[in-house]
Amino acid sequence: MDQVRLLVIGGDAAGMSAASQARKRRSREDLEILAFERGAYTSYSACGIPYWIGGLVPGPSALVARDPSTFRRDGIEVRTGHTVTGIDLAARTVTVRSPSSTFTEGFDELVYATGATPIRPPWAETSAQGVFGVQTLGDGAAVDAWLSADPRPETAVVIGAGYIGVEMAEALQRRGLRVALIEKAPQPMSTVDPDMGALVADSIRKMGIDLRTGVTVSGLETAQGRIRAVVTDSGTLPADVVVLGLGVRPNAALASDAGIPLGATGALATDLRQRVRGVEGVWAAGDCTEVLNRVSGRPVHVPLGTHANKQGRVAGINIGGGYATFPGIVGTGITKICDLEVARTGLSTRESTAAGFRCVSASVESTNRAGYFPGAVPMTVKVIAEQDTGLLLGAQIVGRTEAAKRIDAFAVAVWNGMTVTEMTALDLGYAPPYAPVWDPVLIAARKAHDAL
Amino acid sequence: MDQVRLLVIGGDAAGMSAASQARKRRSREDLEILAFERGAYTSYSACGIPYWIGGLVPGPSALVARDPSTFRRDGIEVRTGHTVTGIDLAARTVTVRSPSSTFTEGFDELVYATGATPIRPPWAETSAQGVFGVQTLGDGAAVDAWLSADPRPETAVVIGAGYIGVEMAEALQRRGLRVALIEKAPQPMSTVDPDMGALVADSIRKMGIDLRTGVTVSGLETAQGRIRAVVTDSGTLPADVVVLGLGVRPNAALASDAGIPLGATGALATDLRQRVRGVEGVWAAGDCTEVLNRVSGRPVHVPLGTHANKQGRVAGINIGGGYATFPGIVGTGITKICDLEVARTGLSTRESTAAGFRCVSASVESTNRAGYFPGAVPMTVKVIAEQDTGLLLGAQIVGRTEAAKRIDAFAVAVWNGMTVTEMTALDLGYAPPYAPVWDPVLIAARKAHDAL
Repeated sequence: MDQVRLLVIGGDAAGMSAASQARKRRSREDLEILAFERGAYTSYSACGIPYWIGGLVPGPSALVARDPSTFRRDGIEVRTGHTVTGIDLAARTVTVRSPSSTFTEGFDELVYATGATPIRPPWAETSAQGVFGVQTLGDGAAVDAWLSADPRPETAVVIGAGYIGVEMAEALQRRGLRVALIEKAPQPMSTVDPDMGALVADSIRKMGIDLRTGVTVSGLETAQGRIRAVVTDSGTLPADVVVLGLGVRPNAALASDAGIPLGATGALATDLRQRVRGVEGVWAAGDCTEVLNRVSGRPVHVPLGTHANKQGRVAGINIGGGYATFPGIVGTGITKICDLEVARTGLSTRESTAAGFRCVSASVESTNRAGYFPGAVPMTVKVIAEQDTGLLLGAQIVGRTEAAKRIDAFAVAVWNGMTVTEMTALDLGYAPPYAPVWDPVLIAARKAHDAL
Repeated sequence: MDQVRLLVIGGDAAGMSAASQARKRRSREDLEILAFERGAYTSYSACGIPYWIGGLVPGPSALVARDPSTFRRDGIEVRTGHTVTGIDLAARTVTVRSPSSTFTEGFDELVYATGATPIRPPWAETSAQGVFGVQTLGDGAAVDAWLSADPRPETAVVIGAGYIGVEMAEALQRRGLRVALIEKAPQPMSTVDPDMGALVADSIRKMGIDLRTGVTVSGLETAQGRIRAVVTDSGTLPADVVVLGLGVRPNAALASDAGIPLGATGALATDLRQRVRGVEGVWAAGDCTEVLNRVSGRPVHVPLGTHANKQGRVAGINIGGGYATFPGIVGTGITKICDLEVARTGLSTRESTAAGFRCVSASVESTNRAGYFPGAVPMTVKVIAEQDTGLLLGAQIVGRTEAAKRIDAFAVAVWNGMTVTEMTALDLGYAPPYAPVWDPVLIAARKAHDAL
């Protein structure tokens, strides 16, 4: 049998998981694997960047799960600093730009795992230094260097109060900067409902971060090639460093240019086995793809490391001759901001309505542990259910400790299409150090049942 | 309409939940509620007793959720210190012994919620002081008083290393006693598999508790009316106090004497709405009843406060004219012993085999948080699945922190009859402070899938 050649575009979680799983199942004689990564790092935890910047974890090497030499040892050739600039599906080749040359490489199978790029609105296009998106480990290194350089930045403005914005705001504050966090929406974390977002806003402000919601940025002020301030519709904020937390866009241009049709979200669309729809021998995984939201039934673009890893694994198993599928997501997301824990799964109220559900919701205040147990602190749990059927549509949690991972019980319940009524009977773990005799999850399900 | 009279036998979680839910739905004019409790306390957390004895939480009043005066205010009459000694189903009366007299009370509806009693083998029948079972708040008060009395106990022997035994061993050690913990089986916590039990045994020993497994007790030594030692097949252990942790037996004699048929486990058998099978107008809930194990399909006796509360609530809703069911359990149990967290759900390997399943299992070592995040500590997760179908049968977790409540994801998965293969795709919460990018739950499911 002739050796098959697998090219991987993108050396992070999705691409390298695919490579590793394919390698596990097929010998070097049978399958050659060559990966191109435009950055300097492979298989890293981008989610760890805020903690690195904040000084909680060392970086960047601690965030790298496997480096190129490890992959090479396992028979996966990785070329960092190599950017794929074109794909020719008819010729089965890609064009690659290395630091020293441009060349083409042929492939039999292709894994497209190019990730995503922070959104940079026109007003953020500047040649001045000190404005960062934070998506790759390289981005993290650039921020880290800027914060340590002279003149030492003292004021920071983070634009966008989603996961990465909020995490970076905390990181910058930890690093000793005065931090303003600007959000266009009336609340931070628009992935949760307004009432839950208000709890998050309170906590962010109590941390001493200058959170400004409902504020629109109109431009940046620069001087001597450095960022100086952020201009908003409610004033100008001094900024020695600006971090963009406005979300990311799938890196799909390369695919689009090659004639690969994109999905409705602008990301690559794949089948359950991560094959790009309508293109033979091309696979895609990770932040450049769209995924099925199992609750709304719609494709969505949800760039998260946990999905990227799973999708890459699925692609690799299938390339390796095995069988695996990625059946979609239910919209779970959690984050920690200082001692505040925020979690969500399923659909928010707004998302439920947008999907066409008529829904009810219920919120409860409970505690992480039995009320009498040391360390018991409050937790707010909100549940959203379809009005007519009681179908659990989503849940949100804001708490202080032992709160966020409680979302997993909801995530599994959403996955399985449980009703809130059935949820009230769930046999969840109970002992005084871990939960009140009615776990907050159960109380919230009961209240939602009562609201039907 | 004539007023209906509801009698409740037993004033703890099950009985008083039933009373409260019935009261919520029916007015005082419509429904009279009268509860008899033989002890001094109502609606308390028996699960909190070890933490009270260990000095972690105040007691006993902190463990009482609602006291008789609160119930009275809500229109529920409670008589503590009143023991029901007989039920006459034909006459619709109960016989009650109060501190001062014996009398009968009529009823239209009856809630049987008598709880359970610690098992006391023949060798433990003694008139000497210092030997305790720990089931009621009164038991807790007796232990507490004994530990504080002169001569102050210095050595303790706990017999039986299940949940209550292990928790009490830790409590007694915290209280300053030298503690031996004796278990007949080769491992503590026989509710988990031997390999997981070995991890628990190691930890218990590292705490300085003298754990002795595979040891049988043959008798007690007493002197001057006090316990002095425990005689075992591997020596005699000095004991100024003995705690029995040999499990509990449902308090079903009163029902049995009244001609109410018991279930296969020796506990009361009810339908889904908590009606005692075959007896009109009699309800049962809590530790005196058996419940359906949804995985094995068998009735089991699992005395836990969380089930008692749910069953009582269901009975009360139904008595109140509403509709609710208690569809059974999946065998979830968690405990904390110092900084060790132990959790299980579904069936153990032994229980799976006994139920007729041909099963495989897989264990993984992972961490509670991303490996690079501060506070990341190891956790062992074991998954048991049906060999031919991949059906998730059970899971067990032993870890140090943020471990035990991860069992909830498994509990919901077991409840819904998920396969380990489908579980590998679950959308669980991921962020570095909470989990590695592959949550230990997912890694364990993957390994179990690979083992199929």
